[in-house]
Amino acid sequence: MAPLHKLTETKTRTRQAFKNIMKKKVVLAFSGGLDTSYCVKYLKEEKGLEVHSVLVNTGGFSAEELQQTEQRAYDLGVTQHTNLDETEYYYQSCIKYLIFGNVLKNNTYPLSVSAERVTQAMAIARHAKALGADYVAHGSTGAGNDQVRFDMIFHVMIPEIEIITPIRDMKLSREEEIEYLKQHGVEYDFVKAQYSINKGIWGTSVGGKETLTSHQPLPESAYPTQLTKEQPERVTLHFVKGELTGINDQVYDSPVQAIQALQGIAGPFAIGRDIHVGDTIIGIKGRVGFEAAAPMVIIKAHHTLEKHVLTKWQLYWKDQLATWYGNWLHEGQFIDPTMRNIETFLQETQENVTGKVHVLLAPYRFQVEGIESEHDLMSSKFGSYGEMNNAWSGEDVKGFSKIFGNQAVMYHKINNTEL
Amino acid sequence: MAPLHKLTETKTRTRQAFKNIMKKKVVLAFSGGLDTSYCVKYLKEEKGLEVHSVLVNTGGFSAEELQQTEQRAYDLGVTQHTNLDETEYYYQSCIKYLIFGNVLKNNTYPLSVSAERVTQAMAIARHAKALGADYVAHGSTGAGNDQVRFDMIFHVMIPEIEIITPIRDMKLSREEEIEYLKQHGVEYDFVKAQYSINKGIWGTSVGGKETLTSHQPLPESAYPTQLTKEQPERVTLHFVKGELTGINDQVYDSPVQAIQALQGIAGPFAIGRDIHVGDTIIGIKGRVGFEAAAPMVIIKAHHTLEKHVLTKWQLYWKDQLATWYGNWLHEGQFIDPTMRNIETFLQETQENVTGKVHVLLAPYRFQVEGIESEHDLMSSKFGSYGEMNNAWSGEDVKGFSKIFGNQAVMYHKINNTEL
Amino acid sequence: MAPLHKLTETKTRTRQAFKNIMKKKVVLAFSGGLDTSYCVKYLKEEKGLEVHSVLVNTGGFSAEELQQTEQRAYDLGVTQHTNLDETEYYYQSCIKYLIFGNVLKNNTYPLSVSAERVTQAMAIARHAKALGADYVAHGSTGAGNDQVRFDMIFHVMIPEIEIITPIRDMKLSREEEIEYLKQHGVEYDFVKAQYSINKGIWGTSVGGKETLTSHQPLPESAYPTQLTKEQPERVTLHFVKGELTGINDQVYDSPVQAIQALQGIAGPFAIGRDIHVGDTIIGIKGRVGFEAAAPMVIIKAHHTLEKHVLTKWQLYWKDQLATWYGNWLHEGQFIDPTMRNIETFLQETQENVTGKVHVLLAPYRFQVEGIESEHDLMSSKFGSYGEMNNAWSGEDVKGFSKIFGNQAVMYHKINNTEL
Amino acid sequence: MAPLHKLTETKTRTRQAFKNIMKKKVVLAFSGGLDTSYCVKYLKEEKGLEVHSVLVNTGGFSAEELQQTEQRAYDLGVTQHTNLDETEYYYQSCIKYLIFGNVLKNNTYPLSVSAERVTQAMAIARHAKALGADYVAHGSTGAGNDQVRFDMIFHVMIPEIEIITPIRDMKLSREEEIEYLKQHGVEYDFVKAQYSINKGIWGTSVGGKETLTSHQPLPESAYPTQLTKEQPERVTLHFVKGELTGINDQVYDSPVQAIQALQGIAGPFAIGRDIHVGDTIIGIKGRVGFEAAAPMVIIKAHHTLEKHVLTKWQLYWKDQLATWYGNWLHEGQFIDPTMRNIETFLQETQENVTGKVHVLLAPYRFQVEGIESEHDLMSSKFGSYGEMNNAWSGEDVKGFSKIFGNQAVMYHKINNTEL
Repeated sequence: MAPLHKLTETKTRTRQAFKNIMKKKVVLAFSGGLDTSYCVKYLKEEKGLEVHSVLVNTGGFSAEELQQTEQRAYDLGVTQHTNLDETEYYYQSCIKYLIFGNVLKNNTYPLSVSAERVTQAMAIARHAKALGADYVAHGSTGAGNDQVRFDMIFHVMIPEIEIITPIRDMKLSREEEIEYLKQHGVEYDFVKAQYSINKGIWGTSVGGKETLTSHQPLPESAYPTQLTKEQPERVTLHFVKGELTGINDQVYDSPVQAIQALQGIAGPFAIGRDIHVGDTIIGIKGRVGFEAAAPMVIIKAHHTLEKHVLTKWQLYWKDQLATWYGNWLHEGQFIDPTMRNIETFLQETQENVTGKVHVLLAPYRFQVEGIESEHDLMSSKFGSYGEMNNAWSGEDVKGFSKIFGNQAVMYHKINNTEL
Repeated sequence: MAPLHKLTETKTRTRQAFKNIMKKKVVLAFSGGLDTSYCVKYLKEEKGLEVHSVLVNTGGFSAEELQQTEQRAYDLGVTQHTNLDETEYYYQSCIKYLIFGNVLKNNTYPLSVSAERVTQAMAIARHAKALGADYVAHGSTGAGNDQVRFDMIFHVMIPEIEIITPIRDMKLSREEEIEYLKQHGVEYDFVKAQYSINKGIWGTSVGGKETLTSHQPLPESAYPTQLTKEQPERVTLHFVKGELTGINDQVYDSPVQAIQALQGIAGPFAIGRDIHVGDTIIGIKGRVGFEAAAPMVIIKAHHTLEKHVLTKWQLYWKDQLATWYGNWLHEGQFIDPTMRNIETFLQETQENVTGKVHVLLAPYRFQVEGIESEHDLMSSKFGSYGEMNNAWSGEDVKGFSKIFGNQAVMYHKINNTEL
Repeated sequence: MAPLHKLTETKTRTRQAFKNIMKKKVVLAFSGGLDTSYCVKYLKEEKGLEVHSVLVNTGGFSAEELQQTEQRAYDLGVTQHTNLDETEYYYQSCIKYLIFGNVLKNNTYPLSVSAERVTQAMAIARHAKALGADYVAHGSTGAGNDQVRFDMIFHVMIPEIEIITPIRDMKLSREEEIEYLKQHGVEYDFVKAQYSINKGIWGTSVGGKETLTSHQPLPESAYPTQLTKEQPERVTLHFVKGELTGINDQVYDSPVQAIQALQGIAGPFAIGRDIHVGDTIIGIKGRVGFEAAAPMVIIKAHHTLEKHVLTKWQLYWKDQLATWYGNWLHEGQFIDPTMRNIETFLQETQENVTGKVHVLLAPYRFQVEGIESEHDLMSSKFGSYGEMNNAWSGEDVKGFSKIFGNQAVMYHKINNTEL
Repeated sequence: MAPLHKLTETKTRTRQAFKNIMKKKVVLAFSGGLDTSYCVKYLKEEKGLEVHSVLVNTGGFSAEELQQTEQRAYDLGVTQHTNLDETEYYYQSCIKYLIFGNVLKNNTYPLSVSAERVTQAMAIARHAKALGADYVAHGSTGAGNDQVRFDMIFHVMIPEIEIITPIRDMKLSREEEIEYLKQHGVEYDFVKAQYSINKGIWGTSVGGKETLTSHQPLPESAYPTQLTKEQPERVTLHFVKGELTGINDQVYDSPVQAIQALQGIAGPFAIGRDIHVGDTIIGIKGRVGFEAAAPMVIIKAHHTLEKHVLTKWQLYWKDQLATWYGNWLHEGQFIDPTMRNIETFLQETQENVTGKVHVLLAPYRFQVEGIESEHDLMSSKFGSYGEMNNAWSGEDVKGFSKIFGNQAVMYHKINNTEL
């Protein structure tokens, strides 16, 4: 017969094992920051859950950062941490169409964060499903867009898995979170960064005390990428059917690589910075700084190429659909089938969007200088603007002007309008 | 009895007088350039018309330039020359709405020339009517937008007056025009300017050999306004119901003056330059450089203010209507009553577009830094973006997310979509 | 000194009086049906509130019905009942624009209920404010559109007044409500009507067991207005600036009267019946029958008149804006300022929508036969369709065709398209 | 040596043969009516051309009519007549998308003629190309839409072939044409039909003296298909991915056959008659009667099915794009690549538009009674409209209402709006 303390030990182990078997699993969207660190401890200690943390990389994390975040997750006590690289999927399912549509929210913001959050939510949902999780958790507060994006994707993709949102539910302050973590032996240096930064392949958002006002710009120092190139530089972008496939005659395996290469070239010019104020999903106005060198250069270059190769009404309808597409994506409605219909439309318009675009990069600014394309409608085969040509005559235009203005003539005559 | 030669003289005079009485009047849109100089001579000598030249100033001519053009007109033999200043009318009837609508054609071009040509055509039509003219003439070629704009406005406003377009009809080359003028004793130095420039209050267009290609930018020297300020400068724009009423706390009698003052401040930074390629009315693509410091700064500042004070759907619908308004204006259809309906809509949206906008001007670029407005919807009375608030709870947002995504949930469940 | 029991009595009375003084007021949207009858008792007995019931008439109640509902309210124990007639306000603030915009949701439904519910909510909010109410209550369930419309209007107009929704909160069944009322001495004959009917000036909705399916039509008997006229009848509608001002040469004091008169003429033909399936605000599909003789005849007649007097693009943009206006109204967002902007646009387009429209009424159908208007653009002054004319020549049209198709010619030539 | 007169004869013959060899070919769009009969003679006699007549059937001609037209062509002296049956191509390239888009011009007219004229022009262009024709001719006048449609398609598809339009060019009256034909030995009975009829698979247009006014309806007798069925009849339409594949459980090889079968069933009810007034391409208003039983029933049935299976925004965007698609098709711009992009969009939306639609046919009217589809979003799995459900709670809707109305609340509070 075993000595008593051994017996006790065995019992304890058994109970522990039993408890482990019984423990329910939660998949947690984990960034390594204060909020999600709190969530790990809270979900484990207060809820008794087995925490499976996930970080979804959409092109904003270095290998080192991924490694550090993973380490922190295990230090905090997760059962399992997973880094999912969704950058390529993010490009194929979303960024591609933002380029096709030249999408800038309110003509300003490339939707850097909006788009990636949906991709992240989808990856987490698939992960939770694969793991057979009982719960899924995110660290969103109750005042932002992300909570809605996470919730909605989860409702569609994993309706059977309950969502837990500790920060939103308990309205915790930073101090309360830090105190709780301390009590549980976690004493990281959670000094609040002066600016909250969110980085992905389609741009970096920057929030801070100035963006909480309406009148202050972000200081130079708030931007993660500082100006380090002073001499203007020319760069040529190669597009094939609307996608960036090469830069300066170098072809890349994937547009993802081309985008990252362009970011390396253009970023040091501190290009693509701006502050956007827009409508959040929950109806309040939100202001956010961003830097997005590659996205801004790509969109403007792509748009210029399109202005040469597409017809007037192709340009018009692309704009209409893409504006709405961007807004609806922003509102977390990526899974509405209307979005797939619009993507098909946008894809179809890119058939001839192939050619080179020349761009001048300079400190804080860039200029699209020109394009070359075999589909260029500004062809010398036809009359060039401002010079006479052979495909039609002045008489033809006279007739056109008469008929084109016919209804206006009638309207004003019949109604005796004073002009 | 009078001596014979006297008799002859009298007869000649009488015949001349008779001829003068009989002479039909033509009103000619006159710029002082080669084409319209040719027109004066042609209309007078070949057509035997009494030429009444008109220059319509839309804010692009100095007093000196106006004086010189008038002198040239008389030198060429016009019966009467008139300078019409339509700048204020141009602003009130058109530019105002381009600002309300943040109109940039294809997201690039402030429609500098398109808009003013219509104003000019209307002023000429009214002038021709007042003079009781038999003909109206313009010097447009058969390959551009302007011929259609002139023709259409004339068809509506002065349908009873015949339009004469010598350059379009005879497809004359520069050389032929110069030769003809020489034969008629006119030997101005018609050296072709390297770049053709069109200047008005809403911007200056620049055309030249590079804009006839798709791939070349304009050289620095092509732009009339050169960079002369190097030190960044902050400027505050005051808007009242969407109109620019002041700058840096100075109030102007008219937005026209405020625009011109801003041009004086921002122009020397060589701001607002770009090259636009777009669809001409006659279907070909046209490429044109432009500089428009004040227009670009005003539109971006105004748009930023609107993003703070208007609701999401006001912004959306303004965009839709204003995009089409700009396109239709560009195509010379300013007189379609739909345009009046849209102007009323745009005006109505400006009720709360009142406040200050802070802008940083720097060489070749500018940055809208922030706004102040009592109508700012980014009010601290309500929850600010990213922080918790009191007007609603996390539970409210949970409910919202559930219902907001309801249809997508149903759609995917009923159709067993794989996501 | 008073005897003891008297003292006690006095105290009791004082307490009662005090309690009465203290009683909080609730304004209840009251229809006289089971749900709102339950609410009266519940609010009074369980919540101890002073109930002020309100019925907002939007043209669907007769004087007798109003009288009966008022009686029932007092029988149930309300402190005060008020009948508010909002028909004229409803027309002026809403129906007018539905006519201007020819609004039929999904090209089918005149928004009979959607529009009136918002008007009712606004009237109730103003009433609650005027009374200094502490609460406002409505009897909506948790599955329909009305709850959202009531809630949203109340949040905007009376944010300081708490909303109570007993039926939604307690998920009560009909049986439970009836049982509770019985227990409180109310034994009305709450036999469930086979069809639930909602009547207002802009149409009557009909719901019942068939509308809960997707495949069944409503039986003839479900429609409140039965076919009683067999002989076709011609009627002439007079519009002035888009508003119905007269019928068959009789002028009415208000369009409200004209609409009601037309309903009297057209209703007996059982015209304007249909079943609509549409998207509810909360994302589910809802199906509802309706009869709306006057609204359907007015909209089709008005639209035909517009097709004669408006230009192509006025018709196009009216459609775009009105479609969205109808959708947003349906979703209870009447108070979005975008709606006011669109109303201004629509009003502006009606300047020339003046004339007569001839309509043939027949059993179950009608046909717009023609119009007469001095603004008719189908003027014989100009070329009539299909016959030659004098305002332009065949040569003009040849030129037009060439230029109008210019871009397509270029596109296909440059891209060597196979057609 | 041959006698003189023989020589002469030989020479004449040789010259004739030579002339025949040299004779240039013209392909003529031939309908057998007066205008195109005139064209045959004119092109042959006055222009000395070898006339190749073509009739393009888009579903409106019987075998007998085709035979008669061919005979008349040869009688008039054509070298070759060809009947091209383009009905299937017409459906596949155009009608299909009109159904997907529920296209009714100005909410009225199924574009019966507009669409088929483009198909005919394309078939004629291909035929002219195949024959190596020197000219192509059509009998359009200078006042209608068809001239523009023919011209534009020919400019794109056969730019090297010259277009001849005798009727337009010479502004001939009926009398002049008849007189000319008489002089050339043609004495058909060209009594002007009281109504001009154009028949194709997508409907029949009817023009006559009433349609030249704005106020008169067409008389009953003007419609080719008279009422011959009095007893209401139920019919079930089967759609697969938006296409009509069967009727009453009978499956057809092609939607073309299904449409024709439905026309056979519904036509005798005199369903789908109306008068449309719309904007012609050349700016004037045109009025035309039509009967289109099958098209109207199909469009309304298809739309109802879509309202059950598509999401709110799919319905919205389909409408936007389809409205413009119909307008642009009407204006002869079928060959704009934007049209292909929109077709792709529409096709993509039809993925789930599969199911049955029950329709009641009655004299002069029909009623869509209901649908059945496995993709029906009005699923009983979720809460049905008006009844409580389990997928969400009243609390969820309360939260939704609060957040959904958030911006309006803020807007009115900040701006102190009086409501």
